[in-house]
Amino acid sequence: MTLSFNPRNGQSTAAHPQTGPDEVAGLVAMATLASGAVAATAPAVRASWLGAIAHGLQTRADELVALADQETALGAPRLAAELAGAARSLRFYGSVAAEGSYLGATIDHATHPDSGVPAKPDLRRVRVPLGPVAVFGASNFPFAFGVLGHDTASALASGSPVVVKAHPAHPRLSARLAEIAMRALAGVGAPAGALQIVHGFDAGTRLVTDPGIRAVGFTGSQAGGLALWRLAATRQEVIPVYAEMGTVNTVVVTPAAAAQRPQEIAAGFVGSFTLGMGQYCTKPGLLLVPAGSGLAEAVARALEAASPEGWMLTEAIAHSCTAGIGRLEDAGAKVIAQVTAAQHGWAAGPVLLQADAASLTAGSALLEECFGPVAIVAEYDGDQALSAALSALPGSLAAAVHGGTGDTALPRLVADLSRRCGRVVVNGWPTGVAVGWAQQHGGPWPATSSPAHTSVGAAALDRFTRPVAYQDAPDGALPPALREANPWRLSRRVDGILTS
Amino acid sequence: MTLSFNPRNGQSTAAHPQTGPDEVAGLVAMATLASGAVAATAPAVRASWLGAIAHGLQTRADELVALADQETALGAPRLAAELAGAARSLRFYGSVAAEGSYLGATIDHATHPDSGVPAKPDLRRVRVPLGPVAVFGASNFPFAFGVLGHDTASALASGSPVVVKAHPAHPRLSARLAEIAMRALAGVGAPAGALQIVHGFDAGTRLVTDPGIRAVGFTGSQAGGLALWRLAATRQEVIPVYAEMGTVNTVVVTPAAAAQRPQEIAAGFVGSFTLGMGQYCTKPGLLLVPAGSGLAEAVARALEAASPEGWMLTEAIAHSCTAGIGRLEDAGAKVIAQVTAAQHGWAAGPVLLQADAASLTAGSALLEECFGPVAIVAEYDGDQALSAALSALPGSLAAAVHGGTGDTALPRLVADLSRRCGRVVVNGWPTGVAVGWAQQHGGPWPATSSPAHTSVGAAALDRFTRPVAYQDAPDGALPPALREANPWRLSRRVDGILTS
Repeated sequence: MTLSFNPRNGQSTAAHPQTGPDEVAGLVAMATLASGAVAATAPAVRASWLGAIAHGLQTRADELVALADQETALGAPRLAAELAGAARSLRFYGSVAAEGSYLGATIDHATHPDSGVPAKPDLRRVRVPLGPVAVFGASNFPFAFGVLGHDTASALASGSPVVVKAHPAHPRLSARLAEIAMRALAGVGAPAGALQIVHGFDAGTRLVTDPGIRAVGFTGSQAGGLALWRLAATRQEVIPVYAEMGTVNTVVVTPAAAAQRPQEIAAGFVGSFTLGMGQYCTKPGLLLVPAGSGLAEAVARALEAASPEGWMLTEAIAHSCTAGIGRLEDAGAKVIAQVTAAQHGWAAGPVLLQADAASLTAGSALLEECFGPVAIVAEYDGDQALSAALSALPGSLAAAVHGGTGDTALPRLVADLSRRCGRVVVNGWPTGVAVGWAQQHGGPWPATSSPAHTSVGAAALDRFTRPVAYQDAPDGALPPALREANPWRLSRRVDGILTS
Repeated sequence: MTLSFNPRNGQSTAAHPQTGPDEVAGLVAMATLASGAVAATAPAVRASWLGAIAHGLQTRADELVALADQETALGAPRLAAELAGAARSLRFYGSVAAEGSYLGATIDHATHPDSGVPAKPDLRRVRVPLGPVAVFGASNFPFAFGVLGHDTASALASGSPVVVKAHPAHPRLSARLAEIAMRALAGVGAPAGALQIVHGFDAGTRLVTDPGIRAVGFTGSQAGGLALWRLAATRQEVIPVYAEMGTVNTVVVTPAAAAQRPQEIAAGFVGSFTLGMGQYCTKPGLLLVPAGSGLAEAVARALEAASPEGWMLTEAIAHSCTAGIGRLEDAGAKVIAQVTAAQHGWAAGPVLLQADAASLTAGSALLEECFGPVAIVAEYDGDQALSAALSALPGSLAAAVHGGTGDTALPRLVADLSRRCGRVVVNGWPTGVAVGWAQQHGGPWPATSSPAHTSVGAAALDRFTRPVAYQDAPDGALPPALREANPWRLSRRVDGILTS
């Protein structure tokens, strides 16, 4: 039996029986059976499935937010907003599927023997769904990166059945979300097996090694993501693991910005790194400020003034946050401000540390993520010291730069940061990941195990497809996306020309 | 010193000094230095670089074909055609880069606060080059998959410098190709370090583990490709390895086709599996024919009538082909026709085996590639036996089906085969990989280590890029592809709408 914990008092209740190995195999077999029908369903119809799930979420919003708050202590306002965003995302991924560009439909007609160019066959290429996808959601976003989050929505939208592993930080919510979604899917005629759920650690392991699973989506810690990536590499047929993992997301403040907007930057940084008690994979964990700018002190004062408090999601996260702070201190950082937390449950208060930018060298513990309301302010002494620190940064999901009016350093800093992350924010904060066509939520290793992909935004669908080319196939043997008459009215590339 | 061998007599000559570890590190450092300039060069200018290399190839065609023939014994006509194709491919990848869709430029403008939808920042996404790419070419295509083959051309086109590992099967040609290309690049003003070469096995290993190398392209055997994939996984920062590996490419003959075109199919199969002495990664290694159709005997007679002869590329390949035939016999296949080879050098004659389709079970040695002029004809007894055999097939690069007039089984067979390969050919043979926008040269594991990608065709560029999003960046800090005025006149997606 899995347990559900209340972070506010640490008390547990029974949540759900663990899914045994035979049961996992049976669920994957059902997903495999469903995969042909899910893949063959027109994308516009799959969009209606996602719309039905979104509707199910919204009509039960109050119940779901209350349940999520019991298990995560993230607070009803934040959770209600997150649920609304998850419903919008489900519909967005459906609309991306229906738009159809994700299929990459491409047609090269055969060359005529008398055309003077080398003879070529008729070739047509389209992306096809991989088949059953295992989804491991995150502790920190029970809706956005949970059972019905980005991975599930983009996998279903692109035509693959999903088997979700319930997150131990919110097992009751996970079960309820799956139940609502399965009912919604049945109501609109989706095949049984399009979406299913398993519970328990061993069930997750069994899922990743089941030959029927064709890809894995994961959001969470480096340790968790890399463990799944390693496990998948031991399979007879290795499958892609799209692990989006936590990183230190660096924010650079230029001298001009530090001089012009010190209070705004200090307050903004505190707000961003303590949001949701710092339990964001995009939390800005490192603020690089000019030496002598007084910004470190300004941030310390802003933290003390704000004094945010809250709870860590799980006991393990609370422990590892405390241990992480110890590692940062061992690596030379000093605590310069902290908020003392209440003494109930897994309550936590933010901690601000200071370090010298010169100590930010490759491999330093100062450049490892400390998940929770913890951040470092590091002073750099001149451009060269800043460059040296930036070149030591490991890959991250996001980074930001704050510049001043007419700041000539901005283009170079944006370019430098873009080499080490998936998203560069200017005069803003990395927390807050908008869902749209242009989003990139990924980054160089170890931000994700697959830096060419994104786990948020339209391109998230690409992860669960692979291209197939058809050579000289008669029209009737082609998938609809490639038929000459273009029955799905897709934008396609025909003989090299993109057509709408 | 590496050695160059002549397959026609087995004699060797000294080829090139091995590249030492410090020298490899120096070359990677040079590539890293060049990577900023290569990435910042407009794609249309990089296209002119590839054009210059193509021109260099063509003006020295006679010399290069003679050198290639000495080292590979593939024959001047085939090699001249391959060189011409490689020149066309270099120009094609340049044109794909210049066209610019590979950048995936996408712009979501900020939403207005009074627009009634949730506030969103300005987000712009584009694919940026990964940086230095290590390329390991194949033995069997010294031009198409050699120093200046698909991997090198697509990596350079997409904006990354390349360091090639010379192939031991054609080290002198490799050195000469690199020399010609480096001179051509220098002549059109490309930065030094855009293309370089290393020699020797240890140099290749050093290359893959050098922190400056950001991706690996490989074409060759399962053993070689998986060894590099494993090696890259041990790096501090793991990088993608795009290994395109040899597979058994299955061809299905329907009862109607077997009845209507037995001689054409038999002769076509012999021509395809003995082309280049079977040293093609797309060689059809397995022909599934209806029991009682007499096709196995027809193929045997066609082989005896054609009696093609030639040489294996290397001594190691010759030995492993002989060993592979032994493994196929141990697994139950019987030799039904063979051509006796001459006794000089690494001469080889084709071998045709027969097996029962019922013995084609998952994990059987009958489903492992035997590189060389070796193929199996397997008889299936009815639809169910055929389905069982198809469901046991491992992932492959290509597959084919031969159907008859009005063959109602064709659509289902095309769909079944598409689940196990990267390209399905109808009424044709898998050898011959056209270069164009719609090509897919890849397939499910273990055909490649990255089934979402292709090593031939326009999408080959995608392998050496990763997306970056810019949030609220001022126009002057954006890369040209994302600037509001669209200076490169790209097709871009703006606020969800694809624009030309």
